[in-house]
Amino acid sequence: MRAAIAQSEKVKGSTYPNPPVGAVILDAGGQIAGVGATQPVGGAHAEIVALRRAGTLAKGGVAVVTLEPCNHHGRTPPCVSALLDAGIASVVYAVADPNPEAAGGAEALRAAGVQVGAGVLADEVAGGPLREWLHRQRTGRPHVTWKFAASVDGRSAAADGTSKWITSPASRADVHRRRVAAEAVIVGTGTVFADDPTLTARPADGTEVARQPLRVVVGRREIPSDARVLNEDASTMVIRTHDPAEVIRALGDRTDVILEGGPTLAGAFLRAGLIDRILGYLAPMLIGGPITVLDSVGVNTIAEAPRWRFDLTERVGPDLLVSLVPE
Amino acid sequence: MRAAIAQSEKVKGSTYPNPPVGAVILDAGGQIAGVGATQPVGGAHAEIVALRRAGTLAKGGVAVVTLEPCNHHGRTPPCVSALLDAGIASVVYAVADPNPEAAGGAEALRAAGVQVGAGVLADEVAGGPLREWLHRQRTGRPHVTWKFAASVDGRSAAADGTSKWITSPASRADVHRRRVAAEAVIVGTGTVFADDPTLTARPADGTEVARQPLRVVVGRREIPSDARVLNEDASTMVIRTHDPAEVIRALGDRTDVILEGGPTLAGAFLRAGLIDRILGYLAPMLIGGPITVLDSVGVNTIAEAPRWRFDLTERVGPDLLVSLVPE
Repeated sequence: MRAAIAQSEKVKGSTYPNPPVGAVILDAGGQIAGVGATQPVGGAHAEIVALRRAGTLAKGGVAVVTLEPCNHHGRTPPCVSALLDAGIASVVYAVADPNPEAAGGAEALRAAGVQVGAGVLADEVAGGPLREWLHRQRTGRPHVTWKFAASVDGRSAAADGTSKWITSPASRADVHRRRVAAEAVIVGTGTVFADDPTLTARPADGTEVARQPLRVVVGRREIPSDARVLNEDASTMVIRTHDPAEVIRALGDRTDVILEGGPTLAGAFLRAGLIDRILGYLAPMLIGGPITVLDSVGVNTIAEAPRWRFDLTERVGPDLLVSLVPE
Repeated sequence: MRAAIAQSEKVKGSTYPNPPVGAVILDAGGQIAGVGATQPVGGAHAEIVALRRAGTLAKGGVAVVTLEPCNHHGRTPPCVSALLDAGIASVVYAVADPNPEAAGGAEALRAAGVQVGAGVLADEVAGGPLREWLHRQRTGRPHVTWKFAASVDGRSAAADGTSKWITSPASRADVHRRRVAAEAVIVGTGTVFADDPTLTARPADGTEVARQPLRVVVGRREIPSDARVLNEDASTMVIRTHDPAEVIRALGDRTDVILEGGPTLAGAFLRAGLIDRILGYLAPMLIGGPITVLDSVGVNTIAEAPRWRFDLTERVGPDLLVSLVPE
């Protein structure tokens, strides 16, 4: 399953609205015969890619998949049929398909005499490669990750407004890596005026990015026509509102979006309950002063403060990356 | 050496101005024959305690000590003589003694034909059990740990001033455990007015604390005579100043002090360069609003911000404890 997860992570961001799934086919002797991941929309599902690579070695073998194989004719034929046609003896998957149309795969496989194991590393997959897609299935809206960079005392800039660079090159590279997997990156007009960011995904290793995330600028102020966010490196949507719900609506059927907004916009999204994950890059410094990473979130007394949960903390260069999800 | 470190950690706080040292004696066959740690001032050093426990098994054995054995007559006879008298064949220690009076132990042992190994787990010991004592030796002033509790966005209270409880019972228990090892706990008058803390060490397991740290209240405002910090549970020193250097002077020859001050006092200590370690208990919540963990630290532009280094991050219940030391 770890190999299947690794496959799925490679394609994360390129498959939406389809889920980024990974699959591994083991031959009857338990050796890896083929691996695969979901292709961009209209292309093959992960199981099909892995089966093709395995060829006749799949006969009597095991399919390990991060999501329950689908059982419906969508843009592609059902994976269940392909698994049966290949003579797979056993299927192991992590997460059940929540989509009523696609679900029923496990049942159909069992009915055809295939041994089925469910729930293997399910939490890891559901909180990892499939997190955003599962959120979209469950709620019907995009998964919003609020990303911020701050000092340990919660400051996003010094008193004079300078913020370059609180966090390290390693942290900035990590942000670009995450932008590659996202479909949209949102900032407020305040960030455009303060930092004039390009907002494109620029991996540190210089690899070309096949598909830049949509750049979204939110707020009522008119931004200058020579703002970098309006350049030709990617598409840009300007939304003249302060209402997070309107922003979410404008994002349509997107699955994975990153909010890189400043203290006011982030506060508005938090108050609206529209942040699904927080990624904080904490730099080992203390800045103090007036510029905080977050203004008001409508918490007047401690008991009112919504509880989150640290689901990950890791060192990124000299910085500390903390991830929080709703409790 | 890990066993010796564990011994030293048990006595940390009870030995100052002497270093909290741990020692393990292995017999000639490599089995543990005795362990020991520094006794309170006037009592035996770690090596002596361990040698007594080992008895005649020490002959031809190995002494493992966290600090280079002393070679001077202080309140107790030199440990080097005791090690030689016991017939120890080999001595392994972590950190060299920086005190010119006590040093020379390794040399004396070698001159007497004992095999000596230095530097084993030296960083772990120097950054851990001996950190505060080594700092005192090097700088002549107490080691000051600034402890704060805050939300991930750097707030120490909600807009209405409520701060009970941002962090979890597990974090508060951890703070009490650290207070047990400290000689003084400093707060500002602002904290006394806002929270009326008792400031004593109260371990979660209810064990009696042999020696409460001195409570130190700093600031010009007069605090009410019925403030809990003035009760009879421990001694209290009130210092009518805002100057961190004066506070440090008033702490005399103490080694390990904890600053639990609010945003103004902590800022003053940071500006004065008198914080040697930062322990932040970060709660998984976002509070926003005006009450930050730190006011001004005199950083006007990012390039001016002093750099620290995360030397430890660990989960404490639902919270995240981050430790920073100067880079």
